[in-house]
Amino acid sequence: MKAAVLHDYDLDLLRPEWVRYEDYPDPRAEKPHDVIVRIGGAGVCRTDLHIIEGIWRDKVDIELPYIMGHENAGWVEEIGSAVEGVSIGDAVIVHPLVTSGHCLACRRDNDMHAEENSFPGINANGGYAEFLLTSETSLIKLPESLAPKDVAPYTDAGLTAYRAAKKASKHLVPGQYAVIIGAGGLGHIGVQVLAALSAAEIIVVDLSPRALEMIATMGAHHTVVAGDDWVEEVLALTNGHGAEAVIDFVGEGDAIVKGLAATREDGYYYIVGYGGKIEVPAIDMIISEKTIVGNLVGSYPELVELMALADRGLVRLDTHEYRLSEANKALHDLNAGAFTGRAVLIP
Amino acid sequence: MKAAVLHDYDLDLLRPEWVRYEDYPDPRAEKPHDVIVRIGGAGVCRTDLHIIEGIWRDKVDIELPYIMGHENAGWVEEIGSAVEGVSIGDAVIVHPLVTSGHCLACRRDNDMHAEENSFPGINANGGYAEFLLTSETSLIKLPESLAPKDVAPYTDAGLTAYRAAKKASKHLVPGQYAVIIGAGGLGHIGVQVLAALSAAEIIVVDLSPRALEMIATMGAHHTVVAGDDWVEEVLALTNGHGAEAVIDFVGEGDAIVKGLAATREDGYYYIVGYGGKIEVPAIDMIISEKTIVGNLVGSYPELVELMALADRGLVRLDTHEYRLSEANKALHDLNAGAFTGRAVLIP
Amino acid sequence: MKAAVLHDYDLDLLRPEWVRYEDYPDPRAEKPHDVIVRIGGAGVCRTDLHIIEGIWRDKVDIELPYIMGHENAGWVEEIGSAVEGVSIGDAVIVHPLVTSGHCLACRRDNDMHAEENSFPGINANGGYAEFLLTSETSLIKLPESLAPKDVAPYTDAGLTAYRAAKKASKHLVPGQYAVIIGAGGLGHIGVQVLAALSAAEIIVVDLSPRALEMIATMGAHHTVVAGDDWVEEVLALTNGHGAEAVIDFVGEGDAIVKGLAATREDGYYYIVGYGGKIEVPAIDMIISEKTIVGNLVGSYPELVELMALADRGLVRLDTHEYRLSEANKALHDLNAGAFTGRAVLIP
Amino acid sequence: MKAAVLHDYDLDLLRPEWVRYEDYPDPRAEKPHDVIVRIGGAGVCRTDLHIIEGIWRDKVDIELPYIMGHENAGWVEEIGSAVEGVSIGDAVIVHPLVTSGHCLACRRDNDMHAEENSFPGINANGGYAEFLLTSETSLIKLPESLAPKDVAPYTDAGLTAYRAAKKASKHLVPGQYAVIIGAGGLGHIGVQVLAALSAAEIIVVDLSPRALEMIATMGAHHTVVAGDDWVEEVLALTNGHGAEAVIDFVGEGDAIVKGLAATREDGYYYIVGYGGKIEVPAIDMIISEKTIVGNLVGSYPELVELMALADRGLVRLDTHEYRLSEANKALHDLNAGAFTGRAVLIP
Repeated sequence: MKAAVLHDYDLDLLRPEWVRYEDYPDPRAEKPHDVIVRIGGAGVCRTDLHIIEGIWRDKVDIELPYIMGHENAGWVEEIGSAVEGVSIGDAVIVHPLVTSGHCLACRRDNDMHAEENSFPGINANGGYAEFLLTSETSLIKLPESLAPKDVAPYTDAGLTAYRAAKKASKHLVPGQYAVIIGAGGLGHIGVQVLAALSAAEIIVVDLSPRALEMIATMGAHHTVVAGDDWVEEVLALTNGHGAEAVIDFVGEGDAIVKGLAATREDGYYYIVGYGGKIEVPAIDMIISEKTIVGNLVGSYPELVELMALADRGLVRLDTHEYRLSEANKALHDLNAGAFTGRAVLIP
Repeated sequence: MKAAVLHDYDLDLLRPEWVRYEDYPDPRAEKPHDVIVRIGGAGVCRTDLHIIEGIWRDKVDIELPYIMGHENAGWVEEIGSAVEGVSIGDAVIVHPLVTSGHCLACRRDNDMHAEENSFPGINANGGYAEFLLTSETSLIKLPESLAPKDVAPYTDAGLTAYRAAKKASKHLVPGQYAVIIGAGGLGHIGVQVLAALSAAEIIVVDLSPRALEMIATMGAHHTVVAGDDWVEEVLALTNGHGAEAVIDFVGEGDAIVKGLAATREDGYYYIVGYGGKIEVPAIDMIISEKTIVGNLVGSYPELVELMALADRGLVRLDTHEYRLSEANKALHDLNAGAFTGRAVLIP
Repeated sequence: MKAAVLHDYDLDLLRPEWVRYEDYPDPRAEKPHDVIVRIGGAGVCRTDLHIIEGIWRDKVDIELPYIMGHENAGWVEEIGSAVEGVSIGDAVIVHPLVTSGHCLACRRDNDMHAEENSFPGINANGGYAEFLLTSETSLIKLPESLAPKDVAPYTDAGLTAYRAAKKASKHLVPGQYAVIIGAGGLGHIGVQVLAALSAAEIIVVDLSPRALEMIATMGAHHTVVAGDDWVEEVLALTNGHGAEAVIDFVGEGDAIVKGLAATREDGYYYIVGYGGKIEVPAIDMIISEKTIVGNLVGSYPELVELMALADRGLVRLDTHEYRLSEANKALHDLNAGAFTGRAVLIP
Repeated sequence: MKAAVLHDYDLDLLRPEWVRYEDYPDPRAEKPHDVIVRIGGAGVCRTDLHIIEGIWRDKVDIELPYIMGHENAGWVEEIGSAVEGVSIGDAVIVHPLVTSGHCLACRRDNDMHAEENSFPGINANGGYAEFLLTSETSLIKLPESLAPKDVAPYTDAGLTAYRAAKKASKHLVPGQYAVIIGAGGLGHIGVQVLAALSAAEIIVVDLSPRALEMIATMGAHHTVVAGDDWVEEVLALTNGHGAEAVIDFVGEGDAIVKGLAATREDGYYYIVGYGGKIEVPAIDMIISEKTIVGNLVGSYPELVELMALADRGLVRLDTHEYRLSEANKALHDLNAGAFTGRAVLIP
């Protein structure tokens, strides 16, 4: 098959090719629950840039060359001997984790914490290719309303935003406020999900007035440009108290300090973006009784829930299509901030 | 003051006056937290018809003549010696229960179950009058967007629907279904609340095609005329499983049996309307693992939440205004089903 | 293999053999996740008597002759081609349901409601035999502290009691009360679980003073003989309010009416036993805002939790051992009430 | 009245008197809900040492001289004009916050976050005295089993430990682990509460083998001396995973870093002690999906719950009695670590 293969860690802007578009051996469905998916679309994620940079080199056990791409959707091409849940030809979206489904975490709607799992695109070959090896247990059949290339980025960016917003929706009651920091790839999903699942008044903070304009059409009730005083603006919008939930999709620069400051006493600060560091004196946590919540990608059932929202048009995703052979262009464009929304590679 | 006073139990259609519009002694703020509210509007409730019928005669401790009216809003007219939370002239909505605020139920967002309470309009003089005696702890200040006469029915009809819908919203996740039985006074609020607080797909069942048409503009995704086969229609809409939540605002006739049949295994049936009887073999409850939930009016904090929804335009209430002196006409019209929505008496 | 096989529906006391101890073809592990368990013990349940009576004849799809026994534990004897979670020789307890593990219910800690499942002993051959066919996904490895024959009845009687008591423990806070109706096979587990998971004050109601004496050593704080006035006695013990949780392991006779009467306003009545019928006017549910909860057997993760309690000695089970060849004696003894606790057949 | 009055901020060991035992004007019940409590016992808290040090000087609005003491119990001596809930002579324990009871936080079991409140002993005169001014809404009547001088420290030390342990008990299921860091004044209550409210396996970590010996009799299942390797010991006790809940009553030195390291993926770290700082890279929070929870003193209903546990003997408190005139000795002894448990001043 054709694939965009990573041979070296180095995010040098002058390198002509970060990945090489070349022939690669086809994966096979050898184990009983293996499934080969013919890729319809593979999302391009900022994490892929971090991989090329080499940040993940010591964190995961993978040898170069390998194939990135952890946001995948397509059609079932080949199935293992024990597969019963999907048939060849089914349109499917691929939950990013491959697990056995037997451990307690898998059974408790918590498969991101499965005792044994792999993460194709991160620590196994991913979806920058014509075919992907995954497992029956990771597949969700798509309704006719949703084409693989249009939904691939839901599997990671979308699912992570969904999970954080869902957690917040559990405690937000009418009359309360939510702040979303970052109106980008994750943030624009987070806003739509929160608007669908709660009646909280939503304030979105971002550096870009253009992004804020767009998000005002997606469920944000107030937008605040992320200048020096944005916390004060949030306090003014929330009767001086701050928001009962703050979801931080940025997680670096002063987002964390300000995000915590914009969180009301007894409120929840959800950290999703990363790069920065949380630093807070214990006494401040105690006097304010705030809670800081780490957020990973969501579970398989949560991806089913997100697909239900997408199917009904309650969330929509802005995607930009590239040919798989244009993977380098997509990666460079992402690095350069050349588009909003999410790039998708199509074989 | 002027008041519409109940002198006799008897809902005879030929009686010229079910209540008498006449002079009645003004109430006074004698206890430290007493507040006199000048009525801006008093909702007319089906329960008032039941009171006139005499159904409540043995259930509450009240002597005739007395003044009905348990859905009240207006302006603060006079305050007791210890009142600090409201000032004379404040526009307020009146939570229907008067409690001390000190018992555990009051402190646990459960004041409907306060150990000691009174219910003006039911077991004390109510709001079919120019003035009402209530307590500081029952008052919520209204935002400028909401006039007393437009919100009075939220205090009982609205709040009851809010509480049931909020309970359901806690367990409904995207991809799941809710059935609302009854598109009338409570049902039309319940639909709006559920649509605001969850992403469940909402099916409304009612006898009246006209009521269903109206409710389709208020958040219902499917409407089903309540014919003999409505359960089958609900099953067809829910992949054969039934709904994860059924909220029954009718509670009589075959609504209960059908409502339970339309509830999915492991689902919740909320009973709000009354008149009928729940009859179900224990084995059916066990095999299906369903839950049957009784629903009373909501708590004070829940009324605050509902006012936040109303203030933001997320719920709206259809009201029909009558002069207080026309109380008999309003009651007869309600009895005759002469209007949809809710009648409000205005002194 | 040897098995105790059911050939006819008829619980006639004069029939010499309700089941026949005879040779029966060995089951084989044919499908990838099949596992054959060599039975160490099989619990004898009142449901087995109901099966012999013919009550279940029309409710499940099974042809006679077949093998009853749905409470099983033993050792892994043979495994299918894809089995990875257990090895031959492992001591295991068998969750009563066989499911694929792939559906949403299975992934949401709710496998009792799996879309496809079988229930060996009910609608497939069970454990009144030397060997049982089940699935890898139903097996839990036993710690060394627990022998198969001592734990088999946890899989149904124990697990059902666990699940109901766990539900109650979620809302009971110190200072509140729980009533357990029935101090028998399920009740004595329920008391121990509730005492382990909550600090509620526990009142146990039973007809038998002897059973009450025993249960007073297992976590019950008060015992009440189930005479005509037992509700009054419960009210006297609960400051006149009733209990915040009532778990009814009887579910017939006047248990239901009295159980509901002993439930506090805003409280929960858990129905576990069956035979009777719930009958309650809608208005009573509404005024009291009670909740009626149906209870099925628990999930696989809940059986893991229960085994953790058993391993640590926080629950213990009274068992009475019979040889498998004595199955008829065990069944007759159960029918005659000849023992307390739970009979276990040992091949 | 006699009182131990603070005149200067300075925790100099050579100062003969940190507080002065002297005459002070009697407080009066002037406002409608005011209550004067005759002190039966006032707990001496480490926070009082911090006050003398001057740490709180800029954090609260109080002028010297004033009276410390925020853990109080006694008997009702005088009541304001609107008081109905208590009578003169009643034995009472005093919730540390004085609130109106009308705000949403007060009504949602969250009065620690009341919009307006005072904290006698911190920002108003406290209980190092014969009489204390508080409010009717802060009082809980004591059962006969509990004397004021024996329960005073429950109001802050006990209640804080109760609230943190109760939060943890909500998510801990059998088979899971809890680590408690610190076997001192709060820790010994936390262990007893957690053992009463959950079936988690409890591991207590402390520097002092003597404190660990004591706590092993109070519900701890494992004890670990807080040496360099204590995290590894906890991992060894928890199958390599860490604990699902870690409650840190120390909050300084390396307790925070190690406490977070001992927390399992998807687990909760509760910070109660203070002095240190939480520092954690955002990426670590995200990969592990941990939650960090700040903890303040509990609510009034929670103090009622804790009293129910104490009344039933499920928690007990080690107290050391001093005369009010010996306040300086008690404070010095606390500063010197001269006793375990909690000092109580008795007028």
